[in-house]
Formats: sequence, C-alpha cells, structure tokens
Amino acid sequence: MLRGKQTWWFEQRPVIISAATVVGPDEGDGPLAADFDLVHPELDMQQKSWEKAERLLLEQASEIALEKAKVNKQQLQFYVGGDLMNQIISNSFAARTIGAPYLGVFGACSTSMESLAIASLIVNSGNGQYVLAGTCSHNCTAEKQFRYPTEYGSQKPPTAQYTVTGAGAVVVAPDGEGPIVECATIGRIVDLGITDPFNMGAAMAPAAVDTLTSHFNDTGRQPKDYDLIVTGDLATVGHGIAKDLLARDGIPMEDTVFGDCGLMVYDVQNQKVQAGGSGCGCSAVVTYGHLLKRLQKGELKRILVCATGALLSPLSFQQGESIPCIAHAVSLESPLHN
Amino acid sequence: MLRGKQTWWFEQRPVIISAATVVGPDEGDGPLAADFDLVHPELDMQQKSWEKAERLLLEQASEIALEKAKVNKQQLQFYVGGDLMNQIISNSFAARTIGAPYLGVFGACSTSMESLAIASLIVNSGNGQYVLAGTCSHNCTAEKQFRYPTEYGSQKPPTAQYTVTGAGAVVVAPDGEGPIVECATIGRIVDLGITDPFNMGAAMAPAAVDTLTSHFNDTGRQPKDYDLIVTGDLATVGHGIAKDLLARDGIPMEDTVFGDCGLMVYDVQNQKVQAGGSGCGCSAVVTYGHLLKRLQKGELKRILVCATGALLSPLSFQQGESIPCIAHAVSLESPLHN
Repeated sequence: MLRGKQTWWFEQRPVIISAATVVGPDEGDGPLAADFDLVHPELDMQQKSWEKAERLLLEQASEIALEKAKVNKQQLQFYVGGDLMNQIISNSFAARTIGAPYLGVFGACSTSMESLAIASLIVNSGNGQYVLAGTCSHNCTAEKQFRYPTEYGSQKPPTAQYTVTGAGAVVVAPDGEGPIVECATIGRIVDLGITDPFNMGAAMAPAAVDTLTSHFNDTGRQPKDYDLIVTGDLATVGHGIAKDLLARDGIPMEDTVFGDCGLMVYDVQNQKVQAGGSGCGCSAVVTYGHLLKRLQKGELKRILVCATGALLSPLSFQQGESIPCIAHAVSLESPLHN
Repeated sequence: MLRGKQTWWFEQRPVIISAATVVGPDEGDGPLAADFDLVHPELDMQQKSWEKAERLLLEQASEIALEKAKVNKQQLQFYVGGDLMNQIISNSFAARTIGAPYLGVFGACSTSMESLAIASLIVNSGNGQYVLAGTCSHNCTAEKQFRYPTEYGSQKPPTAQYTVTGAGAVVVAPDGEGPIVECATIGRIVDLGITDPFNMGAAMAPAAVDTLTSHFNDTGRQPKDYDLIVTGDLATVGHGIAKDLLARDGIPMEDTVFGDCGLMVYDVQNQKVQAGGSGCGCSAVVTYGHLLKRLQKGELKRILVCATGALLSPLSFQQGESIPCIAHAVSLESPLHN
C-alpha cells in the first residue's frame, strides 16, 4: 500500500538539462571556484542592501541556467524555489523577474533538494516541460536576520557555521542531455532539543541520519550503491556526529564516500569559516556547480545529496524553543551510467 | 508540448477524504460558525504566546482531520503546509508533532491552495497514499509581525483587512469518500507597484485575475462551468477591483457565482473587520469548513477556489519595495457530480 513510504520514484527519469551557480568572494576563494559560472568580487554586488544582493545572485543564476538550456521565459512553465529570508523575499522578488508560475517552498538549507524534488515530481507527472528549481543565501542577510549584523563584528564560537553567499538553479525537463533525477526521499522533522543557533550542525545531524536511514530502507540500497553521499551543511561538528550515529545504527560510512557540502565549498583549515559552510546556497552551489559536472563527465555514476535544514526562527529561539531540523535526499545519476 | 501550460491535471482524481477547521472567537461569531469543528472562545487559547496559540490551531486541525479520516500517524505519508510566520514556524513545529515527512511551502495567503495542489500532485503520482495539507494564521501573530502588536491599539484604515484566526487541514487520498481535486492552476507573480500594506486586497486583485484568466484559457472553460468561484481574501476593496478587471477582459462574473472567502468568513457589515478577512487561515477555513460540506451534499457540483497571497515582508516594505502578489486556483468537484 505504501509504495516507497517516504521516497518518490521518478520513473520518467527527468533530466537536469542545465545548471548555473553564482557566488560571492569567499566562495570564489574556495577550492571549487573554477566550477562556478560567476564569482562576485564584492559582497554588496553594487546593490543598496544585502537583501537586494541576495536576490541578484538568484536572478543571475536563473538567467544563466535558462540561457544554457536555451529555454526562454515563455517556454519556462514553473519555478520552484525558496530561501532563508522572512517570507522568502529573495525568491518571491526573483520570481517576479523570472515571470513563470511560481511555487514558494521553505526548508531552510534543505530547500535546494526540496525544490529539486518538487520540480522533478512536476516533470515526472507530465505536467511540466521545463521547470526551474533554485535557491540562494547571502552571508550578510543571514547573519543580520538570525544573529547579528556583520557590521557589529561579533565573535563566533568554533561550532558556528559560515553562511554561503551564492545561488544555484537548474532546469529540469522530461528529456535532453544531463544528469538524471532518479528518486527523492522526503524527510521528517527531527528535534533532539538543541537550542544553540551557533551549533546548527549538531542540531541537524540526526535529521540527516533519519533521512539517510529511511532512504536505504525505502530503496533497499546501501551506501556502496553510491559513489558519493553528501550531506548539505553539517560542517565539521555535525558531519562527525552524523557519521558516528550512522555507524551506531550499523551503517558505516567510508570517508571517501561520505562528504559534506559545507566542508567542500571552503578550505575550512585556511579560510575563516569556523566549522564550515551553511545556508541554502551551500548544497546548491556545490551540487549544481561541482557535483553535476562530475556526473556529466561520468567521474561519478550515482550520488545522493542529503540537504539539511534547521527550521528555527529568531522568534522561536527567543521564546525558548528548540530547533526542529529536516533533511531531504535526492539521488542523481550520470547520463553515462548505463 | 506545453500540456495545460500552468494547469496541473489530476487524472487519478484524488479525493479529500476528510477535512477539519479550528478557529478563534471572531470567526466563531461569524456566519459560518456552525461549519467549524472547534471554536476557541479566547484568542490566547491558554498558550504563553500568540505564536504558540497559532501552532495549536494547526495541530488541532491536523489531529481532527486524521481522526475523521481514520488515518493514524504511521499511515500518514506526507504533510505539506505553510503559514505567514517568519520561517513558517507554526508549520515546522506542528510538523514535529504530526511526525510525517514534511514539505514546507510559502505562498502567504495562497498557501491553502498551494499545499492542496502539491498534496494532490503527490497522490496523483502514486507516491502517496495519505497526504495531509494544512495551513493557519492568527490575528495577533500577523499584526505583531507585519504591522503593530494588537496591544498598541493602533487604528487602521477601512481598506485594511482582518487576519483570520484559524487553521484548516485536509487528508488527500487516491480513493475514498469525498470531494475530488480535479486540477490546479499555479499562478505567477503579479506586481502593479502597490506599496501600502494596509491595502492588500487591491494589491492582490490583479494576481487573482491573472490566475483565473489563465485557468479559463488552459481548461477551455468559462465561469458558467462552475457553481461557485471564490477568491481567497480580496475582501471588499480587492474583490470589487477583481470583478471590474475581469469584466474589462471580457469575463463578466455574476454576483451569485463570484465570491470571496474574506467576505464570507465574517459579517463584514457588523463585525469590526474593516474590509473583511485575510490570512492563510481565511480561504482554508471557508473552503475546508464550509465549501467542502456543500460539495459533499451536492449543493455545489464544481467550484474553483483561487487563493490569493501578498508575498511582502516587513523588511521589503521598509526598503521601499512594492508588493509581489500571487494566486493559485484549485478546482473541486462534488462526489455526486456524475
């Protein structure tokens, strides 16, 4: 009766026919710099506010993704996206520019895979020819909204994470050239009572473990069925916890197979990013900028991207609530897989 | 190539097997009082904050909907929901209680039909047996976040609207007894430059007109193909504008066919609600509390619910931005239709 339980299967094998990523200066100084389509040398991107800069990132990523796909705005049928801002304004305003029918979503930093899963479901159902999925974050908008404006120069503990300034967008279609979206496991809320917004990785790790475990149960697969399994933005602290929890549950993960986008986007040892990257843009720019290229070349045959999100608000924190977390996992295959 | 353009067709005819609505005191004094499952006599519902009260409304509506459907938490496969709060905390915290895999969405007051459309798409695709869709709003959380805390007693202009205190939830399934979700038209952003957050109806009216026009174009239907077409929460000012704009476009609407949930939920002449109701809960409690019952009885054969949303944030308003608006329309049929 419950086919797949919490996993959606995309039998029509929707294809990511194009992808684009736009980042800020810190990401441009990181190890994946060569994989991004556009690197802004300044955080303000000559905009009047950080919020307008964040929106610009997403508008540019969407525009480049559509150009690469040779899809014009009239052909684009739906746009699915979200971000960390209150009322996801970066996406709502970018959607005004994009012009397509729009579904706003919110999964905090899991939004990348939530929007990709929904876009793939639409295409798989035959209800969409070209569907865009996108997300974005900006270091200064996130710090201002969730913690302190960066201009204050507040110090942070080493467990804190550094919000990625970047946007990623992909065009999903029923056929064409590109990596295939095979299935998606939708996560449930896991909340073990952590209340420290400077330790998001630890809060999110159990949600990643829950979704990965469900994915393996639903699909009958094991970690060895993937060339790479990446979590979204657990960073140093959270990724270690996730590995320990999985090992305890009888799912040992090899370091060569199990990575984290928050540890890949920066040189964590040498860039001042505390425990590593985070933010909606983190898993988006790593997956859409770096990993899709490796799938396209056949260096990776099949990967699982498990994007993680901490669904707190400043208000819920102030009212003493703990941090509800979630993770959504999407399996992507190389077009050269078979 | 572009089947339906911006309309999703649900060929498997997903069924709303149960619905539940929980409201506050003002809605309990309104003309639809008898249709709601639970009416709270006090706005605080004995919670320590307005936000906790809003969350309670949604938790109760979800619980009652599941009870009516005789579906337990283990059987529930997905929950799709959103609200007006920053980072949609009412839904994220309620989803923790509900326990099912969760997709957070945001469409401001259009969230009711956005979540119903996505839930129906999941069921239609064969990827979900029981999917819950829900949303909520609370007068005091919305006023506090978007305008002024109600305790200040600020005066409002007559174009302002009164946020509904209420939550609605439905269980969608591939088969069973109940109204059928036939198709959904996903709206695009329409922004004609209105910047006044005390005149949301006028801002949202063109978005409703755009979605209704697209729906008629996509489906080849006319207003006469529906027994009732309701907008979400345009209220007095916006509903009149929508009617004028539709007439101008050659789509005259009869007053007996064209209604608005914001005008139905209150006795607008005698309750102190300015232009009428608004909020995510508005179209949810009217549709799920009142209209589904009329469909179930066969009093209405087919209706179109066009939920409207104003996607601003307090920050975007402070930065001088106009209000991007959207509307999503869902067609619902009586089980006695054929």
